[in-house]
Amino acid sequence: MRIAFAEMQAEFKRVLVNRGFSDEMAAESARLMTETSCDGVYSHGVNRFPRVVEYIDKGYIDVKAVPTKIDGIGGFERWDGNLGMGNINAQKCMDRAIELAREYGIGCVAIKNTNHWLRGGAYGWQAADAGCIGICWTNTQPNMPAWGAKDRRIGNNPLIVAVPRKEGHVVVDMAMAQFSYGKMENCKIKGELLPVPGGYDLEGNLTCDPAAIEKTWRVLPIGYWKGSGLSILLDLTATLLAGGSSSYQVGQLGGDEYQLSQVLIAIDVTKIAGDAFLEQAVNEVLADVKASVRVDEDKEVLYPGERVLKIRAEHLKNGIPVDEGVWNKIKSL
Amino acid sequence: MRIAFAEMQAEFKRVLVNRGFSDEMAAESARLMTETSCDGVYSHGVNRFPRVVEYIDKGYIDVKAVPTKIDGIGGFERWDGNLGMGNINAQKCMDRAIELAREYGIGCVAIKNTNHWLRGGAYGWQAADAGCIGICWTNTQPNMPAWGAKDRRIGNNPLIVAVPRKEGHVVVDMAMAQFSYGKMENCKIKGELLPVPGGYDLEGNLTCDPAAIEKTWRVLPIGYWKGSGLSILLDLTATLLAGGSSSYQVGQLGGDEYQLSQVLIAIDVTKIAGDAFLEQAVNEVLADVKASVRVDEDKEVLYPGERVLKIRAEHLKNGIPVDEGVWNKIKSL
Repeated sequence: MRIAFAEMQAEFKRVLVNRGFSDEMAAESARLMTETSCDGVYSHGVNRFPRVVEYIDKGYIDVKAVPTKIDGIGGFERWDGNLGMGNINAQKCMDRAIELAREYGIGCVAIKNTNHWLRGGAYGWQAADAGCIGICWTNTQPNMPAWGAKDRRIGNNPLIVAVPRKEGHVVVDMAMAQFSYGKMENCKIKGELLPVPGGYDLEGNLTCDPAAIEKTWRVLPIGYWKGSGLSILLDLTATLLAGGSSSYQVGQLGGDEYQLSQVLIAIDVTKIAGDAFLEQAVNEVLADVKASVRVDEDKEVLYPGERVLKIRAEHLKNGIPVDEGVWNKIKSL
Repeated sequence: MRIAFAEMQAEFKRVLVNRGFSDEMAAESARLMTETSCDGVYSHGVNRFPRVVEYIDKGYIDVKAVPTKIDGIGGFERWDGNLGMGNINAQKCMDRAIELAREYGIGCVAIKNTNHWLRGGAYGWQAADAGCIGICWTNTQPNMPAWGAKDRRIGNNPLIVAVPRKEGHVVVDMAMAQFSYGKMENCKIKGELLPVPGGYDLEGNLTCDPAAIEKTWRVLPIGYWKGSGLSILLDLTATLLAGGSSSYQVGQLGGDEYQLSQVLIAIDVTKIAGDAFLEQAVNEVLADVKASVRVDEDKEVLYPGERVLKIRAEHLKNGIPVDEGVWNKIKSL
């Protein structure tokens, strides 16, 4: 089924206000989750909403909490998320990083004690909307084995880099695992294989079969040892800068994912590079990439973020696709 | 053959002074290249040295040039590399980023018009030696196809993230291609296969055979579309912040690799996190990773940067391994 943007947002807001959020915070969080769904990232929007409500009910997400500044030095500040709603916390911290970037060229906010920020890309788009480069990352619960290991002790720790562009920002939003759990689950339900190997089977061989990977939970880091290494560094830097919990410590909380550490960086690239250079340089690079010789004649080479614009436009016109069961569940909350 | 650290450094310095470098600059660049070789990264140390000299002789590297500051705002500065020696330029910019981090918490220097920095990890180690988190990246000439493309239009744009640690820093230094050209060449010469697929053969299939990949030059980005996307963003951000050449523009120079753009970020994590938290948090994460259940009982799970320390210690004791042909070539320069 398809649900219009405004209807989805209103429904999310209704539930959040019911759970005790202020009108303003409920509206803000609902907008972010609806935008995420509208951009096609259902796993971190509408499909995740019931879990968000579950985490509120379990007390992991404090509906009354707002992030507070701990301390800072120049362009760097440290905030405490006070276990508030993850997407509101992250948005506020990126807002603050943008303010710092206006003053110091580069601004960095690290936040501890926060919740899942849902779609990390949102804060990249946010920075780019403000004419800034956005760079941000989060740690997660341990959900991937380190390279050479069988058991899951590192996070898939998504990294986002965004560059502003008038015709549509350039944004990469990538977890350190080759595939998300949501993607593997969807493939399994549909009886499909993953497009490239996503983990190991019981015999220790790489496989595209999500059901086989589910038996070992040995999901594959991007670039094998490389994504494993970067995941560890993203966790360490977030933990240290925020003064918060590491993936290891999140893993000690009993299986649920909260008390995360995140880093949000903004760089005022519009002021630094100037509008004219910014537009010309970015468009030249993208035009060259798009002029590539295609592997498949019928498949355009896309720049990072390009697909999102098409999906967004289609969903704004025709509504956001939602699984009926998920939607009924949300209506009942 | 094995060459002692001091002998290699003296030999590099001799050649560089002969080519017109000041005594001080020659010593500095020679030290960096010797350290790189000593850490086992031969492709960007001793094996690359003849190419460095060739680039001096071709006029790409200006032996008299030093980097100069263009402008800045708060914790951000823009420098012109003036086509000076790449490793000296990058080191000076990371030094400046560290100074900025002391004042502003986070410091960022972008440099245009510079040369190959050789081993990017060096500037991560440098930041960590100063008690800082180091994050840096460079663009390169186009040497990898974008995802969905056959021809090489994006760079492998290495990304470095480093965290300081008393017992040995934690450092990831990763190009966006699964394997370097040097690694593929070495495997081909030895008649060995790559440990995991590194690119596509003529039939469009992924392959571990470096000779087959050499026929298409369709090298594989880490994580397929993910590494391709991140490569584009690293190029764009370096180009915009430095106000310099993009990988596309470097590709217009006729096949050689110079006029690069780089970003060097330092964050004063020792001041921000404090010595005690820094040490405790990092060691706790690393101890957990190392306690993983091993895929191969005999193979330790290593943290990023761990292997380097062992290699370095062995080479300082027994000398740095060098191919005799390469060494004779250097002696003759």
